[in-house]
Amino acid sequence: MNHSRNLEVVFTPEMFKYFENPEANVVVVDILRATSAICTAFKNDVSQMIPVPSLDEARKYKNEGYIVAAERDGNVLDFADFGNSPFNFTQEKVKGKEVAYSTTNGTKAIHIARNSQMVIIGSFINLSAVADLLIEKEKDVIILCAGWKGKFCLEDTLFAGALSELLLESNAFQTICDSTKASTDLWSLAKPDIISYVDKVAQRTRLRKLGLDDVIEYCHTPDSATEIPIYQNGIIKL
Amino acid sequence: MNHSRNLEVVFTPEMFKYFENPEANVVVVDILRATSAICTAFKNDVSQMIPVPSLDEARKYKNEGYIVAAERDGNVLDFADFGNSPFNFTQEKVKGKEVAYSTTNGTKAIHIARNSQMVIIGSFINLSAVADLLIEKEKDVIILCAGWKGKFCLEDTLFAGALSELLLESNAFQTICDSTKASTDLWSLAKPDIISYVDKVAQRTRLRKLGLDDVIEYCHTPDSATEIPIYQNGIIKL
Repeated sequence: MNHSRNLEVVFTPEMFKYFENPEANVVVVDILRATSAICTAFKNDVSQMIPVPSLDEARKYKNEGYIVAAERDGNVLDFADFGNSPFNFTQEKVKGKEVAYSTTNGTKAIHIARNSQMVIIGSFINLSAVADLLIEKEKDVIILCAGWKGKFCLEDTLFAGALSELLLESNAFQTICDSTKASTDLWSLAKPDIISYVDKVAQRTRLRKLGLDDVIEYCHTPDSATEIPIYQNGIIKL
Repeated sequence: MNHSRNLEVVFTPEMFKYFENPEANVVVVDILRATSAICTAFKNDVSQMIPVPSLDEARKYKNEGYIVAAERDGNVLDFADFGNSPFNFTQEKVKGKEVAYSTTNGTKAIHIARNSQMVIIGSFINLSAVADLLIEKEKDVIILCAGWKGKFCLEDTLFAGALSELLLESNAFQTICDSTKASTDLWSLAKPDIISYVDKVAQRTRLRKLGLDDVIEYCHTPDSATEIPIYQNGIIKL
């Protein structure tokens, strides 16, 4: 088995430049809640999504007739159709539609990774499907956590650890990356009871304050879908 | 007991701006090897040290008659008296002397923290002494890891976890910081056998390649000194 492919984990978009590798496939992750929501939308047959980095751009897409999911700091914006809870992206609302999606940290990470081989939208929802795709492709892998306003986020790191575990167990990858070691070790602590573990997470404290913590369990449950959204040229599609 | 003081961990100097808090005492840590070396020098009665961010500045101090410790990527520079292994900072070499000290990551972190209440040089060597000082002072605390060329470093994070554990056990501090949770959890895994654990660390791989790994055990052994070096106005003193 070929062990020569490199696996690295990056904790924030701002750190990506220190890892940049144009030969790598990049998995972007923002568990609470951008990439969990995007994976849910594709499970429910959205046709395509446009990640939007600024509120002005989100408003522009609304004026052009797109469905717009937009929030800042967990609050739905007045011009938006809904915010970025995965539970909003039902078949009734998104099937066959084009959705513009603005979010604090997730779209920033997607844009920063845009010059990579493939930019894959990852979440616990499509964990095993993403792992299988990465193992099949003959490329290095970078798992890019969206973080929280430039800071390290534990829930994204746990996903990075879960995905790294699958990739390393396949024997197709090697790593000497400290962030990867930290992620797999933290995942080993969390895995036996992930919901109790994420009670420790600051992001959860923020969401609970906003009354939005109903998605926690859903966003940390592996493999409810097999769809793998891919970002290319400004658009997310299957 | 007052729980209201905030404790945060920052994984790299580049991330410090997202945590900046002029009311905080900042502990700078670069376990392999800048802050371990600085603590060793003060244990051995150096009079003061000047952290130097560039090689040109290190050379300037040499020309002015300072003892100069300088290396890049683990290699001693030709104009320097010695590199930054803690074992160089013996009483014979440094007692009563002024030493200019240049290093890849450590001095960068010290300079970035310079506008904080106190900038404390921390390492396993003075772990408990630093914890006692921070508990005594009525200030927030930020533990700033030097990292490795902009990347997360596990050995600095383990120190951050060990120090955070002491501070949180004192009941004088609280935290909702994900980096602090990750640090204390990683420390809980490493603590039973830290030398085996740090075998996993990328920096150790780098040092071993350079034949410099004799300092690993020393740099991860708590409390061989009680001196607390403090940085102020360009100079490190007790």
